[in-house]
Amino acid sequence: MSGRGEIDRLVTLLGRLPGLGPRSARRAALALLRQPHARMLPLAEAMEQAARAVRTCSTCGNLDTTDPCGICADPARDDGLVCVVENVGDLWALERAGVHRGVYQVLGGTLSALSGMGPDDLNVQPLFDRIAAGGVREVILALGTTVEGATTMHWLHERLARFDVQVSRVGQGVPVGGALDVLDDGTLAAAIMARRPA
Amino acid sequence: MSGRGEIDRLVTLLGRLPGLGPRSARRAALALLRQPHARMLPLAEAMEQAARAVRTCSTCGNLDTTDPCGICADPARDDGLVCVVENVGDLWALERAGVHRGVYQVLGGTLSALSGMGPDDLNVQPLFDRIAAGGVREVILALGTTVEGATTMHWLHERLARFDVQVSRVGQGVPVGGALDVLDDGTLAAAIMARRPA
Ligand SMILES: [Zn+2]
Ligand SMILES: [Zn+2]
Repeated sequence: MSGRGEIDRLVTLLGRLPGLGPRSARRAALALLRQPHARMLPLAEAMEQAARAVRTCSTCGNLDTTDPCGICADPARDDGLVCVVENVGDLWALERAGVHRGVYQVLGGTLSALSGMGPDDLNVQPLFDRIAAGGVREVILALGTTVEGATTMHWLHERLARFDVQVSRVGQGVPVGGALDVLDDGTLAAAIMARRPA
Repeated sequence: MSGRGEIDRLVTLLGRLPGLGPRSARRAALALLRQPHARMLPLAEAMEQAARAVRTCSTCGNLDTTDPCGICADPARDDGLVCVVENVGDLWALERAGVHRGVYQVLGGTLSALSGMGPDDLNVQPLFDRIAAGGVREVILALGTTVEGATTMHWLHERLARFDVQVSRVGQGVPVGGALDVLDDGTLAAAIMARRPA
């Protein structure tokens, strides 16, 4: 494969995407190389536009092209009901399920001794600020039931006890040891509907 | 997911890549969106450069940044020994195995009644021209042992009988019903070494 710098580089970079091993990276590269104008250039352009446009919502931590994000800015959403999720992938999963009519707080991770994530590494202060400013009625803890997720929910629950706010957690439906964003929409809906006080 | 045109478009286009379902497309998009400058823009640039640079070798059908391709242009390769493969992915697999020191002919498909691929749809005339021009000693048929691969090898064998050229096919090592580019390097090496007259 010598003397093909551009092709090798494409395969290498595609292979670094999550979910793409070396073999699927080669297949993807070939599919793109076979249709440079119909497939590769549109994807490249979409990436450049997204890279230019995307920003992190300073209110909730969501990724969007506006700050505040479309969810935070939507007057139809209930900003008195805040759902705490680990990452944007979980937020997307809940939005696809279409069951949460409130807003979000995206932590950007969970407490983990192993990976060295402590409370200061979580994007959680904006939530405390929002609650302190008033208007937040309920916080739903929608974290996975891994050890890290449970630890984080426990810590958050303690921190939130200082505020006059109802705290619930998604209950029924999240399998033990499971991540949130692999669940089907029905399970996510059940988990949200069956939330209970934390 | 409304109001996020750039992000939705990125997920949609990524999801059209072979090997990426909706879920892995979302994961890949998130990984890129989290590091727009470190990951997304370099990949976009690599795609644009590859799209600009890539061309199909008019001699063998390989994809490369030069025409003739690096393999056809390499004086160290034996251009008297031509290996016929279905597609560029198979060529890449054989190059990774490093067992073929000759050149290639990339058919761009196999004969298939189902998908309507006939002899005129195969990139095979350049092979006949190369043989007619003299200098080709042996043609190795390195197609998969699917029905289509076997049909194509049979047809090619008949067509090549008109020429004064030895025809062999990869034998030992290619599993029945198997595609070529999923094989490990050792199996590919065995298949090439154990080739027999067709
Ligand atoms: Zn937001
Ligand atoms: Zn070539």
